[in-house]
Amino acid sequence: MPPLTIPKPIHFGSFLVTNQVFHITPLSFALVNLKPLLPGHVLVSPIRVVPRFNDLQPEEVHDLFQTVQRVSRMIERVFHATSLNIAIQDGADAGQSVPHVHAHIIPRSRGDLDAKGGNDAIYSMMESEHGDLSLSLKERDAGVVTGSTRERSKFPAPDSDESRKPRSTEEMNKEASWLASEMAYDIGRD
Amino acid sequence: MPPLTIPKPIHFGSFLVTNQVFHITPLSFALVNLKPLLPGHVLVSPIRVVPRFNDLQPEEVHDLFQTVQRVSRMIERVFHATSLNIAIQDGADAGQSVPHVHAHIIPRSRGDLDAKGGNDAIYSMMESEHGDLSLSLKERDAGVVTGSTRERSKFPAPDSDESRKPRSTEEMNKEASWLASEMAYDIGRD
Repeated sequence: MPPLTIPKPIHFGSFLVTNQVFHITPLSFALVNLKPLLPGHVLVSPIRVVPRFNDLQPEEVHDLFQTVQRVSRMIERVFHATSLNIAIQDGADAGQSVPHVHAHIIPRSRGDLDAKGGNDAIYSMMESEHGDLSLSLKERDAGVVTGSTRERSKFPAPDSDESRKPRSTEEMNKEASWLASEMAYDIGRD
Repeated sequence: MPPLTIPKPIHFGSFLVTNQVFHITPLSFALVNLKPLLPGHVLVSPIRVVPRFNDLQPEEVHDLFQTVQRVSRMIERVFHATSLNIAIQDGADAGQSVPHVHAHIIPRSRGDLDAKGGNDAIYSMMESEHGDLSLSLKERDAGVVTGSTRERSKFPAPDSDESRKPRSTEEMNKEASWLASEMAYDIGRD
């Protein structure tokens, strides 16, 4: 597949995430996660770094959710899902860890979290330290690998060690290239 | 305050919810909840009854999230909140109970759920029987009052009996009229 070219450095809050980006529009971008809660868990943000949903201009809201719709369609197809959780933690008291508006898109299938506490575990995972995007990105930038002793979620943790470790730059870049090509496939069919 | 006039019967899935509606646009509407998980918990839906986010046309997506933004601004102000949870359960395997696209808007404040299991309890409540919109509306239409024995959430239930009972038509109508006047206040300031 052709290498993904992102025309400029992209920031998610204070973090440089250019190599995690797989789709970009005039006002929005989509990125793969350092530590996805389930395979296919991605984020969509406005390019402009603002903390709250109400900080967005109408054209940013429009572009953001058209992008969420396009990305969610691709994610559901590619990860063979039947449903999606779409969620914005809008402000620190709602669980937001990086002060930059972002919609979580998480592909879901029947019984996918039965071993982890049931359907509602996805939200507990989002709120736990495991889902703390800011902490994960800071550790990545500091070269720290999160060990199992750091996990203090009250809820069952993902059962595979693999899923808990931050992914490598190479792995994320590979997934971003793959998802970029899948986006191109969908847009070609529209 | 002037009575709220909603020009036509509004359906949320198969349920008639006209007297719960406090805001309507050409393509979307906002309604108060029969059993809010926290005070100020409201829903925003497209008028067209379709189950999945990807069923929406671009103009419906645009209108829906402009409406979510306007409603969330009002809700945060009126309920003295500092943050918001905005969430779509897009499909049954993501916890959707009424097969009609709807965004939950839940005002949040620091420590608001400390007595109920912490910040993440809001999602568990959404997923529990307490948050089952379909069940609640069916019981309302059948004249059933949910008793405490029906509650089988694994998570701490709201501590006040008052908060667990479906609200009366009069109470919801009163809240809908109040929120309609608050929407008008915000729109007058824009």
